[in-house]
Amino acid sequence: MKTFNIKMIVMTGLLFIGITRQQNSIAAEKNKTSTPNFIIIFADDMGYGDMGTFGHPTIRTPNLDKMADEGQKWTNFYVAAPVCTPSRAGLLTGRLPIRTGMCSDKRRVLFPDSKGGLPTNETTIASALKGSGYATACIGKWHLGHLPQYSPNKHGFDYYFGIPYSNDMDLTPKPKSAQDYFDACTKPRVENFNVPLLRNSEIIERPADQTTITKRYTSEAINFIKQNKKKPFFLYLAHSMPHVPLFRSKEFEGKSLRGVYGDVIEELDWSLGEIIKTLKQNGLDENTLVVFTSDNGPWLTFKDHGGSAGLLSGGKGGTYEGGMREPTIFWNPGGVKPGVVMDLGTTMDLLPTICHLANVNLPNDRKYDGYDISSVLSGTGESLRDIVFYYRGTQVYAIRKGEFKAHFITQSEYGGEEKKVQETPLLYNLELDPSEKYNITEEHPEIIKEMKEVLEEHLSTLIPVENQLEK
Amino acid sequence: MKTFNIKMIVMTGLLFIGITRQQNSIAAEKNKTSTPNFIIIFADDMGYGDMGTFGHPTIRTPNLDKMADEGQKWTNFYVAAPVCTPSRAGLLTGRLPIRTGMCSDKRRVLFPDSKGGLPTNETTIASALKGSGYATACIGKWHLGHLPQYSPNKHGFDYYFGIPYSNDMDLTPKPKSAQDYFDACTKPRVENFNVPLLRNSEIIERPADQTTITKRYTSEAINFIKQNKKKPFFLYLAHSMPHVPLFRSKEFEGKSLRGVYGDVIEELDWSLGEIIKTLKQNGLDENTLVVFTSDNGPWLTFKDHGGSAGLLSGGKGGTYEGGMREPTIFWNPGGVKPGVVMDLGTTMDLLPTICHLANVNLPNDRKYDGYDISSVLSGTGESLRDIVFYYRGTQVYAIRKGEFKAHFITQSEYGGEEKKVQETPLLYNLELDPSEKYNITEEHPEIIKEMKEVLEEHLSTLIPVENQLEK
Repeated sequence: MKTFNIKMIVMTGLLFIGITRQQNSIAAEKNKTSTPNFIIIFADDMGYGDMGTFGHPTIRTPNLDKMADEGQKWTNFYVAAPVCTPSRAGLLTGRLPIRTGMCSDKRRVLFPDSKGGLPTNETTIASALKGSGYATACIGKWHLGHLPQYSPNKHGFDYYFGIPYSNDMDLTPKPKSAQDYFDACTKPRVENFNVPLLRNSEIIERPADQTTITKRYTSEAINFIKQNKKKPFFLYLAHSMPHVPLFRSKEFEGKSLRGVYGDVIEELDWSLGEIIKTLKQNGLDENTLVVFTSDNGPWLTFKDHGGSAGLLSGGKGGTYEGGMREPTIFWNPGGVKPGVVMDLGTTMDLLPTICHLANVNLPNDRKYDGYDISSVLSGTGESLRDIVFYYRGTQVYAIRKGEFKAHFITQSEYGGEEKKVQETPLLYNLELDPSEKYNITEEHPEIIKEMKEVLEEHLSTLIPVENQLEK
Repeated sequence: MKTFNIKMIVMTGLLFIGITRQQNSIAAEKNKTSTPNFIIIFADDMGYGDMGTFGHPTIRTPNLDKMADEGQKWTNFYVAAPVCTPSRAGLLTGRLPIRTGMCSDKRRVLFPDSKGGLPTNETTIASALKGSGYATACIGKWHLGHLPQYSPNKHGFDYYFGIPYSNDMDLTPKPKSAQDYFDACTKPRVENFNVPLLRNSEIIERPADQTTITKRYTSEAINFIKQNKKKPFFLYLAHSMPHVPLFRSKEFEGKSLRGVYGDVIEELDWSLGEIIKTLKQNGLDENTLVVFTSDNGPWLTFKDHGGSAGLLSGGKGGTYEGGMREPTIFWNPGGVKPGVVMDLGTTMDLLPTICHLANVNLPNDRKYDGYDISSVLSGTGESLRDIVFYYRGTQVYAIRKGEFKAHFITQSEYGGEEKKVQETPLLYNLELDPSEKYNITEEHPEIIKEMKEVLEEHLSTLIPVENQLEK
């Protein structure tokens, strides 16, 4: 990771090199006959600092802490975008949202009046695995197109239970001002958020009773695991929480010192504990890889109803670290070698890693932005990733290469500092200075030059596609 | 801790109530016949966020993380002052520095030309234990008076090995400007820092070779433990690091991704590992309470040569959380109940706690500011502490009571924002908002009123004493 090799920027093809190189990984070695299961747990707007093991002083997360202790805690793990829709598209396809039309400078995410969605010719983790006999379920928030042609069932998921877009959308009555919206989200009433709850294509509840939603997702997840314990499965559990409006079940009211936000995280932690328990009780723990992460950083606009990025700057919506670096844990007893991993990783690496472990081939007619990280998980290799692109909408705002990060454009997450193209990019050393406090541009003209080359090279790989968020 | 009881502010006497209440604590129950050992490891200028388990992404601290996992990680633990000398006085005496003359508004710490020190009529943890047959050692930085009459040997320590004041003092040639000093500290050469290394009253090396100092402290500590395994002992290991100038031994050069600062912390982590190993190898682990904490927050002035307060605001020298809340771990297999503790604690609680566990009486002719927290350690009770005073020099700048913190005076740590008396104190809820971002003064006039009463009540307990730092 410390080498600064210009050849590494050529991302195409590397995935396949990666796959052939990684011979010693988890399931490949351990269970040559039994195909591994995969569970991705994706929190919504949870910050880098919002669990015990990532340093929060007043949120109790014993199950996540234990998961980190028994598994791998990744401290330099990123998402594909600092907001919901493009981040989810990146995770499921292993491709930057710019390649799938899932980002925009005008509408940053899909809204209830949007007509677009994730194109069905994209291969998701679910559709890739389904072809190899996996049972697949999406439980939780989708937000990749709510029209029937874009539903989870059209993207490889046998089963879907959840809400089609963010839990704050469909607010009724419509807020008249930003303050109105803030108040509605921070003193929320279930009946004001008219988001539907679906089972496959059927609306089963509207408005969704969000006070019990985490509990119901958990019970759906557990049922799915139990029902499929005889065949390989992939579960994508995309919690609606801790996105505002915050809701939690009765048992968690007032449980945390960190207020409603803490209650919500502690319920997510409980949920994780129930899932791990289910795996153990059904003898599935040694054959199941569980990943926990979040779709983007904390929504700081909502003050104590939003989370904390810990020592990182910024939050949701922005390209400072707090917007895109996520608290991430991989767990698989016997398969994932316990430890703290400081290598670079992203949610886009999940697709190639999972497909490698499941021995599934991916279509080779498109560019992927993910790397197979299975050798890191098994403790037999280092991450091949050396570069992270920080997109805001359709533009690269910043690039991390090794320890350095260059900001080409800066802008406040939501209002405040206007968009500013930095004639000379700001430069930070993220290993020495994870909080991005000390600009070292002047000391490293050679890095700036290299970063500009990385950017140009990357831009040359982009092919225009139809924008789905502006439809 | 959540109750807001005005009676709790009367601190005198409570200590003794505390002591009689705590019947179920560690050694008291477990080893009625064998007297417990105590080790306090005190880092210098290490920040709240500077270890893995407190959220640092690029500093590896496997031994500290394991200590936290096997012991208690305290997330709301404070020091008596945001700078060195008064913080150390508070820890060793269980009393606020204002009561011992060990703080000043003119000279914040002792300097090589100072004539004062900790008065010998003060009872330290060492002098209290020594009376009951404990072997006692101070290894590391003293900084409570370098004249012979104030030496560790005059304060209950049988043995002393270390430096008498901070490692950046005695800089030669004398710096001509702040920039000069900054450069000398961040590109340090051993020979420029003319601080002596002492064994008891004898100077054995000058300048101290700081590159091997952590290693030598560790080996001295291990020798002391081994030599005293047959009788009860108290070891106060006050590392000189990570105070600038940063030095580490050859084995740790370039070891950390976090640069020299990370190397230094990783060597401290190694040192802790060696001590724990020694305890285990000598069958002392179940009868030894080990505490790890730091004397104040990170010295932010020194940029990446200073540490990180994680999600907390501010650093060394100031009264925002980052200046005085420290990453703290208690460890004693079988004695300390593993878990994350969010109760309030301070270094001043160590003296009454240790004395209770060792069954040692304290003189009752003076006020103590510490509480016996042994029942929290054993998992049988809650902390009696409800209040923390944030002193800068001789003045109370802020008070925490329960979840609330009121800032009566604000000021930058070193330069920048001038001292400002807040006519209406700023108010933060530290449980909801540990980063002190959202002032809620206007919402809680009743808390402001109560905080003012707490302050008045506290000030009424102060008795003028001779100032030792201005001598």
